[in-house]
Amino acid sequence: MAGNSFGNIFKLITFGESHGEALGGIIDGCPAGLSIDLDAIEAEMQRRKPGQSSIVTQRKEPDTVKFLSGIFKGKTTGTPIGFVIENTNQKSKDYSHIKDTYRPSHADYTYDKKYGNRDYRGGGRSSARETACRVAAGAIAKQLLKNVKITAYVSSVGKLSLQKKYSEVNFNEIENNPVRCADKGMAIKMEAYIKEIRKQGDTVGGQITCVIENIPVGLGEPVFDKLHAQLGKAMLSINAVKGFEYGSGFEGTKMKGSEHNDLFNKDGSTKTNYSGGVQGGISNGEPIYFNVAFKPVATIMQKQQTINSEGEQVHMQGKGRHDPCVVPRAVPIVEAMSALVLADFWLLNKLAKL
Amino acid sequence: MAGNSFGNIFKLITFGESHGEALGGIIDGCPAGLSIDLDAIEAEMQRRKPGQSSIVTQRKEPDTVKFLSGIFKGKTTGTPIGFVIENTNQKSKDYSHIKDTYRPSHADYTYDKKYGNRDYRGGGRSSARETACRVAAGAIAKQLLKNVKITAYVSSVGKLSLQKKYSEVNFNEIENNPVRCADKGMAIKMEAYIKEIRKQGDTVGGQITCVIENIPVGLGEPVFDKLHAQLGKAMLSINAVKGFEYGSGFEGTKMKGSEHNDLFNKDGSTKTNYSGGVQGGISNGEPIYFNVAFKPVATIMQKQQTINSEGEQVHMQGKGRHDPCVVPRAVPIVEAMSALVLADFWLLNKLAKL
Amino acid sequence: MAGNSFGNIFKLITFGESHGEALGGIIDGCPAGLSIDLDAIEAEMQRRKPGQSSIVTQRKEPDTVKFLSGIFKGKTTGTPIGFVIENTNQKSKDYSHIKDTYRPSHADYTYDKKYGNRDYRGGGRSSARETACRVAAGAIAKQLLKNVKITAYVSSVGKLSLQKKYSEVNFNEIENNPVRCADKGMAIKMEAYIKEIRKQGDTVGGQITCVIENIPVGLGEPVFDKLHAQLGKAMLSINAVKGFEYGSGFEGTKMKGSEHNDLFNKDGSTKTNYSGGVQGGISNGEPIYFNVAFKPVATIMQKQQTINSEGEQVHMQGKGRHDPCVVPRAVPIVEAMSALVLADFWLLNKLAKL
Amino acid sequence: MAGNSFGNIFKLITFGESHGEALGGIIDGCPAGLSIDLDAIEAEMQRRKPGQSSIVTQRKEPDTVKFLSGIFKGKTTGTPIGFVIENTNQKSKDYSHIKDTYRPSHADYTYDKKYGNRDYRGGGRSSARETACRVAAGAIAKQLLKNVKITAYVSSVGKLSLQKKYSEVNFNEIENNPVRCADKGMAIKMEAYIKEIRKQGDTVGGQITCVIENIPVGLGEPVFDKLHAQLGKAMLSINAVKGFEYGSGFEGTKMKGSEHNDLFNKDGSTKTNYSGGVQGGISNGEPIYFNVAFKPVATIMQKQQTINSEGEQVHMQGKGRHDPCVVPRAVPIVEAMSALVLADFWLLNKLAKL
Repeated sequence: MAGNSFGNIFKLITFGESHGEALGGIIDGCPAGLSIDLDAIEAEMQRRKPGQSSIVTQRKEPDTVKFLSGIFKGKTTGTPIGFVIENTNQKSKDYSHIKDTYRPSHADYTYDKKYGNRDYRGGGRSSARETACRVAAGAIAKQLLKNVKITAYVSSVGKLSLQKKYSEVNFNEIENNPVRCADKGMAIKMEAYIKEIRKQGDTVGGQITCVIENIPVGLGEPVFDKLHAQLGKAMLSINAVKGFEYGSGFEGTKMKGSEHNDLFNKDGSTKTNYSGGVQGGISNGEPIYFNVAFKPVATIMQKQQTINSEGEQVHMQGKGRHDPCVVPRAVPIVEAMSALVLADFWLLNKLAKL
Repeated sequence: MAGNSFGNIFKLITFGESHGEALGGIIDGCPAGLSIDLDAIEAEMQRRKPGQSSIVTQRKEPDTVKFLSGIFKGKTTGTPIGFVIENTNQKSKDYSHIKDTYRPSHADYTYDKKYGNRDYRGGGRSSARETACRVAAGAIAKQLLKNVKITAYVSSVGKLSLQKKYSEVNFNEIENNPVRCADKGMAIKMEAYIKEIRKQGDTVGGQITCVIENIPVGLGEPVFDKLHAQLGKAMLSINAVKGFEYGSGFEGTKMKGSEHNDLFNKDGSTKTNYSGGVQGGISNGEPIYFNVAFKPVATIMQKQQTINSEGEQVHMQGKGRHDPCVVPRAVPIVEAMSALVLADFWLLNKLAKL
Repeated sequence: MAGNSFGNIFKLITFGESHGEALGGIIDGCPAGLSIDLDAIEAEMQRRKPGQSSIVTQRKEPDTVKFLSGIFKGKTTGTPIGFVIENTNQKSKDYSHIKDTYRPSHADYTYDKKYGNRDYRGGGRSSARETACRVAAGAIAKQLLKNVKITAYVSSVGKLSLQKKYSEVNFNEIENNPVRCADKGMAIKMEAYIKEIRKQGDTVGGQITCVIENIPVGLGEPVFDKLHAQLGKAMLSINAVKGFEYGSGFEGTKMKGSEHNDLFNKDGSTKTNYSGGVQGGISNGEPIYFNVAFKPVATIMQKQQTINSEGEQVHMQGKGRHDPCVVPRAVPIVEAMSALVLADFWLLNKLAKL
Repeated sequence: MAGNSFGNIFKLITFGESHGEALGGIIDGCPAGLSIDLDAIEAEMQRRKPGQSSIVTQRKEPDTVKFLSGIFKGKTTGTPIGFVIENTNQKSKDYSHIKDTYRPSHADYTYDKKYGNRDYRGGGRSSARETACRVAAGAIAKQLLKNVKITAYVSSVGKLSLQKKYSEVNFNEIENNPVRCADKGMAIKMEAYIKEIRKQGDTVGGQITCVIENIPVGLGEPVFDKLHAQLGKAMLSINAVKGFEYGSGFEGTKMKGSEHNDLFNKDGSTKTNYSGGVQGGISNGEPIYFNVAFKPVATIMQKQQTINSEGEQVHMQGKGRHDPCVVPRAVPIVEAMSALVLADFWLLNKLAKL
């Protein structure tokens, strides 16, 4: 109701602030009998956690997921899966300088106005640390979607853009470079650029492309819960996301119908895939692909003018350990949210017909 | 559950196929005591309906909304508002040629596979005619949001793009031209282009920009139901939409944090508005603006190769009266869906604090 | 949200006041491919409608259901099933005498206070006429639950109580008498008593027992949505219902565990069925049985003291055509609500395990 | 969806098995700015926990609630309130004798059939231990409902029934005796009887009456979410509950309308309160009162015949520390569930009219 749950059947509800005792969540609606690979979950957590490489924040957060229920003898039991992720490295003092100050382009001002209080400890609930819960739940959703292959990668950093279609990049390259770009040459350029930006005390935006393969026909619910509408919501709910496009996307607006229509092969597959694997809100079996736009991180290491809660003009400067570019660490989050959407629709689709 | 309802508190549930007896819906959760201006609702319906101008489909559908409950003596009573829109112009015969054929880039194939049946009468539930119910409900939501001003306009058709910011266009121009472009000169070019495309028996895509003004601070719910995430879902749920971006959008990915951050004025307003009126998923009082990408209409008046339900290759050609470009008629739909999102969050926000 | 929808997957949303233009509803989530027997639906409507016999209200309401969508060529298509029931016999003048008066033990006072307005036309939304929509939807749910047998009957009228267990009565007798009692001798006594009460201008309460047979094991969801909890809510949501008990019910509170425990037979069936077919909130395959308590109808043909909206003491007397005892007509409503609960859980249970 | 959440706005989602690492839950939708009295929460937990007196189970479970989020500086922040209750006293070995055996009138059989697995450790998710989370959340709901007074008490144990109306008993007596009966003399009889039953290795059922005072007019939502329907569901969702009646309840079925109607006083209050404080599903400001029926606890210390998972007849005997009668400990659970229902409706009612 108040925005902390996601999904209809395979449902994730999360809680937790960046500097409270712990974050956590409940997965309700996961069917019984699913073998859970805890190592695979841990691996996803590692992909998201801070401090993995020289181009991301150097904060140390172990981000270990502790499951409290719903799994017995290695399998889901059908009861809700409760889990917590402890905040071991709270360092509240790092944030004391922003206690009464609204950081520009952060959620400080809007939260304060909406709720009438200020949890000034590092963003509180609006912190991107909350996405750790999504990755944990998404890792279980991935295991439910056994044959489906979800692959996200960085396709642009600032103006450096990978000018290749999803079918032309090299998925094997993604985890080989700290940027998580699906192209070796471009990854090197991007890494260098991010390091330069960090030296400036600045940040930069970027894009992530996600490709979903081996998806069965029929996932997604018309009318309001179209597959791509739910994917779009899922992506836009990730911190710093400013846009979403799937298939031909914004470029497709420039095309004519005679160019854009995906003609069928005899087996129901299509010759082109401008539809991005979704027609009428329902998967058609072709690869689903979409782009997600991330703005530059708002916390910069430069002096900025801002206001405090009294409305007085003050200056502030970011401190501590922040990401100069969010996209490398957002790759597993994009995948996790995709998995949550698909798992939900996969279950729901079992009820579509007698 | 199965995708036919939208909203949490101010909730719309719709039913109806393009060629059944009627479409309709129920609005549940509209507070009692709201004076209803039926003429204003009718006016919105007129903006969406076919046959308004020479550049849209020439089908004749009166699209009159009949309210069956929930309004008594000109005011809402707090009980659900049921309404129907009759399909007076069904012309089923127009569609007989597609009975066993899957139209390229339509929902025919995916619906058939998902539900195991085919309602071949003009798209059935996947028809854009369904959006009439959204416009009716949105018109009531607009009345609930008294002071909020929602303005959508066409900002591109094919490669013709209005290169002006939302603050530089002329809202008064929008209803003066059949394209609903917010710029007189560009409107003339766009109209000419759409006519040319129609002559070719082809279609073309386009974009709509929507601006929301006078919005109170505090609307939107973290974490999953961020204001822009719900707006994005709402837009992506409209037929033919391929992308959504708000504020700086995809262009914002190329910026640095030091450029992109919206510095505060003393009153909490911001010097720039790259955030697009939303920070941390919550409205900050600045204008909300976003772009919606529409693909070219799939039904073209040219011969296309396709397959039938037996998997045989056949040829087909669109018949009847279709839109060469969907964006002019989609303007009121974009506004209606925005209104539904905002009405819901406006009510929900009353419960945010004691 | 605001109480007009029921169910999670197989979901009914209703609208309509007793004296508006029409009532109606939408069934969302019914799987595609279900053959719909319209005559069977009509037959259920006939069982509920007024004027069937000399002991129920003599109002004439045809109560014909018109389906507007979701059914094509005799089968459900998977899209929402919209329907309307017109109010052909509105007779608003009958109710003018209560326009400013709060009828004792009716919803007039509470609706007025809650919503700040008064729809004085025969109860408005609180009228039992709303249950016609439940019967229509329940009739479809029954068709979905092919092999499940739901049988309700009147088990008491005032102090006249059928002292027989559900397994000892004669289901074939139910539709043979206007009381819908499952025992011929008792039916005659009850009918005579209701006639006497009506002559007095008075009303009387009663009970309905419902038995559900051939139910698969596994329906119902722990923890909050236990099968009997949802059945209880369903029954208590029917106008005039004051209580619900299942299995051993209130009598079971007097028993010892050693008497009450249902010992197993080898095949998993039980020797006794004090559990009422539900253990831990989940059906165990034994017959489900429960009792529903209905208060005497509040509208009596005797002069009563009451107050008007100014808080002045006034007198009023019921007019028109009301039921002296509600239970005979409530039998199909109890069955319909049972069917809605079971259909929903039946679908949901398909997702319980891999 | 799958039954682990309760409420629409003020929403509780729970997880946890009796013998897993911890139970817990998330409260979503509690408004910001509520001062939280942790001692009051702890006091409620103490009322529910085992081992409080000689007539309840002697298990030792500290049942301390640890809040992980949503409360900052003693007040709610508007973000979800996550909490855990550790299972410190798991004693799995106590349950090894039932590993392959279905205990009569327990949920063992139905869970196994529904989910295809068996969590034999003390009932798993079906254990009444789950109600600890309800009491924790209910304690917060109580604090939100500042002026509302919710009082539950034991009104019968076996055939020993307190023959007094809710207005005639002594609320101050309730916490003075281990039975939680609102009458000193009857409490002594009940206590003696429960001790006798325990000596027999047997168990017995009972009833709880709950009274809600100082409730504002207008809570509850027609049609399906009537106040008493939601209360009924809440109560029936508690382990071992077999029935629910409010106001005149089952006795009311024997009355005539002329006796049962609650005539108004000039201020809108009523001379009698057979309606039980609810008319048309909405609170009318009079005290709400209802009875809840609990069956005898299924685990008895006598030898019983049963079957194992192979369908073989075996004998078993309860071991360990169980309650001979569940009602004394269920009193705070009944209050907690009432508070959850009322808090939800109290918030929702703020949106009923403009």
